[in-house]
Amino acid sequence: MGIKEEIGPFLDPDTVAVIGASRSTGPGSFNAVENMIDFGYDGEIVPVNPKADEVLGRKAFSDIREVDQKVDHAMIIIPRQFVPDAVEGCGEQGIEAVTIASQGFADVGGEGSELQDTIGEIAEEYGIRIVGPNTLGIHNPMDGFTTSFIPFEPWDYDRIGLASQSGLWCAGFPDLKYGKIIDVGNACDVDQVDAVRYFGQDDDIDQIFLHIEGLRPGRGDDLIGAAEETVEGTGKPVIALKSAESDVGRKAVESHTGSLAGEDEVYDGAFKQGRIVRVRDYSEAQIVSKAFRELPPMDDKGVAMVTHHGASGVMALDAIREFGLELADLSEETTAPIQGMSPGWMEIDNPMDIWPALMGDPHGAHEKSLKAVLEDENAAGVLLSIHVADLTTWDLGIYGHIEAVQKYAPEYEKPVISVPVGVEMDETVERLEEVENSAVFPDIRAAARAFDVLSDHPEEV
Amino acid sequence: MGIKEEIGPFLDPDTVAVIGASRSTGPGSFNAVENMIDFGYDGEIVPVNPKADEVLGRKAFSDIREVDQKVDHAMIIIPRQFVPDAVEGCGEQGIEAVTIASQGFADVGGEGSELQDTIGEIAEEYGIRIVGPNTLGIHNPMDGFTTSFIPFEPWDYDRIGLASQSGLWCAGFPDLKYGKIIDVGNACDVDQVDAVRYFGQDDDIDQIFLHIEGLRPGRGDDLIGAAEETVEGTGKPVIALKSAESDVGRKAVESHTGSLAGEDEVYDGAFKQGRIVRVRDYSEAQIVSKAFRELPPMDDKGVAMVTHHGASGVMALDAIREFGLELADLSEETTAPIQGMSPGWMEIDNPMDIWPALMGDPHGAHEKSLKAVLEDENAAGVLLSIHVADLTTWDLGIYGHIEAVQKYAPEYEKPVISVPVGVEMDETVERLEEVENSAVFPDIRAAARAFDVLSDHPEEV
Repeated sequence: MGIKEEIGPFLDPDTVAVIGASRSTGPGSFNAVENMIDFGYDGEIVPVNPKADEVLGRKAFSDIREVDQKVDHAMIIIPRQFVPDAVEGCGEQGIEAVTIASQGFADVGGEGSELQDTIGEIAEEYGIRIVGPNTLGIHNPMDGFTTSFIPFEPWDYDRIGLASQSGLWCAGFPDLKYGKIIDVGNACDVDQVDAVRYFGQDDDIDQIFLHIEGLRPGRGDDLIGAAEETVEGTGKPVIALKSAESDVGRKAVESHTGSLAGEDEVYDGAFKQGRIVRVRDYSEAQIVSKAFRELPPMDDKGVAMVTHHGASGVMALDAIREFGLELADLSEETTAPIQGMSPGWMEIDNPMDIWPALMGDPHGAHEKSLKAVLEDENAAGVLLSIHVADLTTWDLGIYGHIEAVQKYAPEYEKPVISVPVGVEMDETVERLEEVENSAVFPDIRAAARAFDVLSDHPEEV
Repeated sequence: MGIKEEIGPFLDPDTVAVIGASRSTGPGSFNAVENMIDFGYDGEIVPVNPKADEVLGRKAFSDIREVDQKVDHAMIIIPRQFVPDAVEGCGEQGIEAVTIASQGFADVGGEGSELQDTIGEIAEEYGIRIVGPNTLGIHNPMDGFTTSFIPFEPWDYDRIGLASQSGLWCAGFPDLKYGKIIDVGNACDVDQVDAVRYFGQDDDIDQIFLHIEGLRPGRGDDLIGAAEETVEGTGKPVIALKSAESDVGRKAVESHTGSLAGEDEVYDGAFKQGRIVRVRDYSEAQIVSKAFRELPPMDDKGVAMVTHHGASGVMALDAIREFGLELADLSEETTAPIQGMSPGWMEIDNPMDIWPALMGDPHGAHEKSLKAVLEDENAAGVLLSIHVADLTTWDLGIYGHIEAVQKYAPEYEKPVISVPVGVEMDETVERLEEVENSAVFPDIRAAARAFDVLSDHPEEV
């Protein structure tokens, strides 16, 4: 059985059994069956609860062994000591996908770890794949399915697959809205490696995001192999936030999910080898995800900058150095139009300061400079540093800028990144982000990080 | 004459002369007189233009020497070769504050540098203070005055003074809205040192921001002295964005050598000595500025964390180490309330994972945990890592969180920082930011950076 057949039933089952289905409903009931219904699940739900005849209008069974129909996916949410028997019941029923939400296993150690080992043995015996234990399980707004015992409304999503070691990440971020989520929890079986393999084959997914605290021994190499194969074979980027970098952090992670966090430097090197883009915090995660979502890859490290002011040019030089990019060597043909519009004492180069030029002809300066750098074969990416003032009162810079981007960015397969300065920039950001191959980043280092990942990534395949 | 009397007339003059006042008006005219009027300046404007009889209803003079009234501040915007004579005319008129907007001086080198030297000599002879050349000069929405030849509407400002080496910075950022701005331009005279001294004495200003590309020889020590005296004497923070590259026209970024990196480290050390908080990009600038604006200082490095999930606790431990903070050693009294609400297998510590507790009693878990850590004398600051979902459908976490912050944060002089996770968090952020001693940051490293600067800063004096 391939990874698609193994993981698919977790994310989008025709029939799901809920072992430990609650009879309570409404706020505070943590009723997974109710949540599935509210989330829009249109498959069949089979509640299992020895104390109930029915749950939310569905006939309830006292034991998973008594269920008389085919079940693709069983979700278990019962006290930990009863979990091994439930898993065994799933095995007897031929259920091959089991999510265990229950807590108190390797996450607490001792007896919990032993229980988790027992579950692993049962699963192996029956050929069951397990997500969890200690997990919210699956969130899949793309297909309308969740196993979460916490109610979530479906959200506007992007085509991003997430494998997380934490329920926290399932909530997403304003600029990182997962479309399919596997919370691997303690990852006694299904882990980030399986997720990379699965999402690599899932046509709904363009980008794979991983939250990693630690992997099971030996799985590091598997992750590198799976990621490298996915990135090079499909062009889908694999992005990872790996925490527990510090000793003190590592100590805490053992109690959080019961797995050992590896050496930070080892991860760094391994991620490079596996072409996994590593991010350090929520902000960088959103920057990198957005770069891949909104912008084309770069075939080179050369960046051309067009700026309203020298100061940001200076900052860009710092950032270009920091991220190992190159300042594109612009041809005389490229600089000529702005040179011709500038005072004699100014030498137009890269960064290209268009301020004096745009004071004479705002639209002309913006259009000519952008077209010229996009045409230049040494410029693999374009950075635009812009003043933004009130759109209704100050048309010197920003109208010309927006119109130039609208006119030329879609014509070239090069990332065009604008970094605005101004107290009120919402409308400008919105207009620029609508344009193909154009995105806005909050500062010049963020833009440089975006160029960095775009220039390290293989062309879309 | 003290710094207040020297710099005051630049920012809020009773009478300003505009030497080179344009006769054109409207978009594209770059008419400084028109901009002053539109910006709300209610002092007297004296236009100087040999070709005009009047400018926008004000009588124009052909030479500054012919002006027959007291002028506090002259703004010069004429071709560079005429500037020395104009400055001399200001001297003859007893004008002690002169802003030179004109370009083509040390900014282009050669003859321009010689011209700038000449101006410096004239200024010294007459006891004139000069802002510029090559500057937009002053933006002061707090008093309704600007010298900018580019039109700007007044904006909603915070009590922040800026000295910038670039017009770019004058536009501000969504979370960094300057109240009084001196664009020092080429800084032939008035520079960041003067600005720190002046803003230190200006009761309208609570926070001083500097943009530095380079200082004149010998001014580094002056800056350290002025900043240290200001920070320790007034409690006003001094924040600086220093670009490492000082020569805008320098061609290749690869020519950045070890010696330049060394220079950068010298600045690092000097800033520490002067208690100047250094920031590296626009995002960090906004984080640090906001920390000082919205939150009280910390008397210690200890951070207590309350979290909805272990994963962010792990990230926080990494960040606490990265920024030299300490994980507060919480007393048993502090952990007891949440320990009592948690399953037996959970040991409540710092970070304090309240997830299981809040599933039973969301409001109780939030209120008890926050009150307990605020009461703990080892906790100088509090970090709250929270899930945010749609406020209308999921009340498990976020209502209790917001209400606990509203109830307890104002009672203690400790910073309470929330870091939310969720695709839609605007309303949550808005509610939390209204509360005294409470602020929201976009990620855990940003929160740690905020604690870092707040714990390094002297108590308000």
